[in-house]
Amino acid sequence: MAEITTQMIKELREKTGAGIVDCKKALQEAEGNMEKAIEILRKKGAAKAAKKAERATAEGIVVSYIHAGGKVGALVEINCETDFVARTEDFKTLGHEIAMQVAAMAPLYVSREEVPVEVIEKEKEILKEQALAEGKPEHIVEKIVEGRLNKFYSEKCLLDQPWIKDDSKTIGDLVRDYITKLGENIKVKRFCRFEVGK
Amino acid sequence: MAEITTQMIKELREKTGAGIVDCKKALQEAEGNMEKAIEILRKKGAAKAAKKAERATAEGIVVSYIHAGGKVGALVEINCETDFVARTEDFKTLGHEIAMQVAAMAPLYVSREEVPVEVIEKEKEILKEQALAEGKPEHIVEKIVEGRLNKFYSEKCLLDQPWIKDDSKTIGDLVRDYITKLGENIKVKRFCRFEVGK
Repeated sequence: MAEITTQMIKELREKTGAGIVDCKKALQEAEGNMEKAIEILRKKGAAKAAKKAERATAEGIVVSYIHAGGKVGALVEINCETDFVARTEDFKTLGHEIAMQVAAMAPLYVSREEVPVEVIEKEKEILKEQALAEGKPEHIVEKIVEGRLNKFYSEKCLLDQPWIKDDSKTIGDLVRDYITKLGENIKVKRFCRFEVGK
Repeated sequence: MAEITTQMIKELREKTGAGIVDCKKALQEAEGNMEKAIEILRKKGAAKAAKKAERATAEGIVVSYIHAGGKVGALVEINCETDFVARTEDFKTLGHEIAMQVAAMAPLYVSREEVPVEVIEKEKEILKEQALAEGKPEHIVEKIVEGRLNKFYSEKCLLDQPWIKDDSKTIGDLVRDYITKLGENIKVKRFCRFEVGK
């Protein structure tokens, strides 16, 4: 069995924000492999985050980000459960990252649940016509449309967008990481983005 | 005739941003009275500003203001004619003042022209019922409603709101002062305001 040092536990805690016991267990399970331990914690965290996602979020902060010499600006409200968490530097950091994302990637909706039904229907119609025009066989068109609709979501919905600083995660993943780290449910409530001349 | 000193002209320029010749003329007309000279320049400025109000505004900046420890935030886009003016400190100051105003006073519309007809009609109806319930005679109710509707505008429309830093002017007056000072048409294009829990 691999030796788990205090130093390793400390490093893993800094990287994930998980508790000492969880970090030790994850390192043991991963036989001392740091990357694997992070993966294990992330999976556990995601499970915990899903449980927390039901809890009420009435506190929070409003964060802004101004980009490109004042030509683009974003305003974001993110919510959590307690004012204590709302005041932490970690929570502010998350708010800052999300405001930057909104400024850079101009999403239209917070989540796919927010996209109006008529927008989805219209998008599906266009994608279907495109697929047929490309000569795709009728029986796989449905699948192609579903695939391309996911691309639409990952472009227009903030939580589905790949994070500009690490495109191996979505903004939804980033929020879940912070739910694990801060131990509270977190929600992106709304955002607004202005670009001069648009 | 009162003597107009260089010092007086300098002071008037600093206060109004008007040119040397205009300041000298205004001081002569006001017989050296500084307050009166400011009033004269403001009237002239307002006339010039009205002329400029027709000109296209395609440049500008986005400005944010975060208030009360992150519980309230405002985002504002203000437009002007050239990028040169958009980059000036004066223009940024105006943007900052307006964003602060939006955060503090929560307007719903930029101008009264933006208030939907049905909102005005409904407001008028309520005001009329109130006036009648107060026992006001039928023939003056119309006048009372008009008066109270102006109060509605001065609460809900940004440009009609008294400026929080000097309630002798409205935000519209403040914008006109900057049109005079910067010599370009300026427009508040849009704003957005988030308050945690609202």
